[in-house]
Amino acid sequence: MDPRERIDQALEAALVRQGDAGTPPRLMAAMRHAVFPGGGRMRPRLALAVAAACGEDLPAASDAAAVAVELMHCASLVHDDLPCFDDAETRRGQPAVHRAFGEPLAVLAGDALILLAFQVLARDVAVAPDRMGRLITITADAVGLPSGIIAGQGWESEPEVDLSQYHQAKTGALFAAATMAGAAAAGHPHAAWGAVGARLGEAYQVADDLRDLAAKAEDLGKPVGRDAELGRPNAPEALGIPGAVKRLEGLLAAAAEAVPACPGEEMLKGLIKTEASRFLPKELARYAA
Amino acid sequence: MDPRERIDQALEAALVRQGDAGTPPRLMAAMRHAVFPGGGRMRPRLALAVAAACGEDLPAASDAAAVAVELMHCASLVHDDLPCFDDAETRRGQPAVHRAFGEPLAVLAGDALILLAFQVLARDVAVAPDRMGRLITITADAVGLPSGIIAGQGWESEPEVDLSQYHQAKTGALFAAATMAGAAAAGHPHAAWGAVGARLGEAYQVADDLRDLAAKAEDLGKPVGRDAELGRPNAPEALGIPGAVKRLEGLLAAAAEAVPACPGEEMLKGLIKTEASRFLPKELARYAA
Repeated sequence: MDPRERIDQALEAALVRQGDAGTPPRLMAAMRHAVFPGGGRMRPRLALAVAAACGEDLPAASDAAAVAVELMHCASLVHDDLPCFDDAETRRGQPAVHRAFGEPLAVLAGDALILLAFQVLARDVAVAPDRMGRLITITADAVGLPSGIIAGQGWESEPEVDLSQYHQAKTGALFAAATMAGAAAAGHPHAAWGAVGARLGEAYQVADDLRDLAAKAEDLGKPVGRDAELGRPNAPEALGIPGAVKRLEGLLAAAAEAVPACPGEEMLKGLIKTEASRFLPKELARYAA
Repeated sequence: MDPRERIDQALEAALVRQGDAGTPPRLMAAMRHAVFPGGGRMRPRLALAVAAACGEDLPAASDAAAVAVELMHCASLVHDDLPCFDDAETRRGQPAVHRAFGEPLAVLAGDALILLAFQVLARDVAVAPDRMGRLITITADAVGLPSGIIAGQGWESEPEVDLSQYHQAKTGALFAAATMAGAAAAGHPHAAWGAVGARLGEAYQVADDLRDLAAKAEDLGKPVGRDAELGRPNAPEALGIPGAVKRLEGLLAAAAEAVPACPGEEMLKGLIKTEASRFLPKELARYAA
């Protein structure tokens, strides 16, 4: 099965099972709106790819790991789009959840998606309690304190921010969790996998900042993207465009190098290279090495 | 040790461990503000009392269970107080989190407290993975779909609400989780314990509605409390004051009757009666049987 199809089916199954009889219908609709149609599903695809590379022996655990990281990602987008943060009008080409369902249901939908991730892990990995415990810690740490997504968001309320620590928490942490969760779901030691995901996540964030800039600025030298508007730290702003592109390339190479020995090591390194070529906005290709 | 002191020490330990180096200081301060000083700590006290009644053999698991339900309660208050819900100015005699730290940090603090509950359970009950799995499911179900706190909140965005289902989800679910978690932490079958907590939780909510009314109305027959203002379902409004008092008394008796056979059965029934006498606002004592 195509990984994307597998991920969407597992997400659908999780929503249907927990959201059955008894759930307020509009809350359920808001959660669906947050999850479907998805974006690139990059984090769960990464989790599944790592699980496969580790010789996946418990597909339900890999599915649960992939679903958990994607639900956390969706939850973070819903809360990030709220009026008190980005006040986004749209997300993935449709109205943001709070625009479509109101702010109360957007807050609740984000909360409920976080909870759903743990409900899925606790139920679907119950056959392998040690793996379940590791998956829950990996997932919770990726979003919570001291250095998960929420900590990353929290840095936006501080007077001084370290660019690398901020990106690492806000984006890198969930990418690192995706790779670690894939390994843990397959019963492999997971710690060494964190570096692979963290580097991919940091690369993705740098690419995103570049894309933000390329899409919005007529003069690429002028920082007019949303992050700059909000006064947020931003790689192209800090390093200049050529510097940011160089950093992106270095991070992708480092991610491939960090792949630990596993049955599917070469397959996975190849996959990282293929995916990586899609990271750099084409308007900026002339800056590539 | 006094249960309240034990609970506060365990909460403090959880915040210190996860909130160490690396956490944005203002986010950490907002979380502390949400957790200390606490209210009655009724849910964690209930969890510890049930664990004791079941012959607690793993105090770290009981602590984790108590901490998890209290963190969920605190998180729900922080989000419930947000401008898009109750827009509360104060909570427990101090400014609400969003008033003291701003709305972004209030949203994030609530999220981070939810995550912290799972971080605590996964780490502190890792020695007994089966209990950990049960505790995670109990806790997540109490807050998430289909009938946890968030579902209860979600009903406020629906055109039609069933009073009993609403109270059960919004308050009863976490009380039910507290009793089930206490039993599960002690390695006892937990399902039968849900009824004890659910009844106590429903009684607590009815008492709260009565208190809300008694505190604010000159004419007790006139529903002017906050819930009525917001057009929410409310027991005194639906049943009248004498009917609501009768319901409260019936629920407390039913809670004591529902206590399953366990080493500390009589102790626990006595405790429920003692606590229960504090439920009814004294202004309404003349309505009691």
